[in-house]
Amino acid sequence: MPTHTRETEIVADPTVPLIRMTREFDAPPEKVFRAHVDPDLLVQWLGPAKNEMVIDHFDCRTGGSYRYLHVDGDAQYGFHGSFHEVRPFELIIQTFTFEGAGDGVSLEKVVFEDLGDGRTRLVSTAMVDSFEERDAWLVNGMQEGVREGYQRLDTLLAS
Amino acid sequence: MPTHTRETEIVADPTVPLIRMTREFDAPPEKVFRAHVDPDLLVQWLGPAKNEMVIDHFDCRTGGSYRYLHVDGDAQYGFHGSFHEVRPFELIIQTFTFEGAGDGVSLEKVVFEDLGDGRTRLVSTAMVDSFEERDAWLVNGMQEGVREGYQRLDTLLAS
Repeated sequence: MPTHTRETEIVADPTVPLIRMTREFDAPPEKVFRAHVDPDLLVQWLGPAKNEMVIDHFDCRTGGSYRYLHVDGDAQYGFHGSFHEVRPFELIIQTFTFEGAGDGVSLEKVVFEDLGDGRTRLVSTAMVDSFEERDAWLVNGMQEGVREGYQRLDTLLAS
Repeated sequence: MPTHTRETEIVADPTVPLIRMTREFDAPPEKVFRAHVDPDLLVQWLGPAKNEMVIDHFDCRTGGSYRYLHVDGDAQYGFHGSFHEVRPFELIIQTFTFEGAGDGVSLEKVVFEDLGDGRTRLVSTAMVDSFEERDAWLVNGMQEGVREGYQRLDTLLAS
């Protein structure tokens, strides 16, 4: 069994309205990347377990776009964005809007770092255009959703 | 002849790494918007007059993407990005990368404000993830390119 930590580190940048999330996984970059771009895999881990994730469309390539729903009983939450850059096993840069929050949009980067020995460090940043919006994200329970999602991704990668 | 100013106001935000550009035009939002989304019109005004603009692809709709070149003699400068949201006559949100500068990417919003009397105020913001990158943009002569482009857009809109 691995002895390293699987804690998700979530840090609010002190100078720009950006959040940086760092997490290690016991799988190579190819496998972690695939779990981000294949919608059949994505729905098995993204977000809290209590929500069902429903794909409207998901075309994860440079210049592609996506929309999906998280369904929690009678409540539906829509999310959409476009893929600025998708570089296999290395990098995803995308936009992200939660449709319940007006025209707010974040610019997100996910970097897949190869740690060797079949392990990957994921460094994910999300930037918005005000500190108020960034700090609201931090207090709105989104951190728990991220951590729970990454635990589900551990399970998927081990299967 | 109109008596108002056509100055382009370019402001560096003091709290986040964002630039805000404001400019008024003697044309209604429908016409100004069309000059942004129709590539045959776009190539007639975007950027400095000395450059020839060559479209690789330009699909300006929510979820679309684009790539174009500015050609200055023997030099070519590539730019690409994706369209997060395109709302006719109102709003364009897109990503933007200058291919000569690594993985740097900015998130850009253009808001078309209807001033009535066939006039439009364009409020354009561009955000990057560091003040260094934002401030480099400000000193690199991009402001002159923006101002010259908007003067060319005046001419196009009057035609």
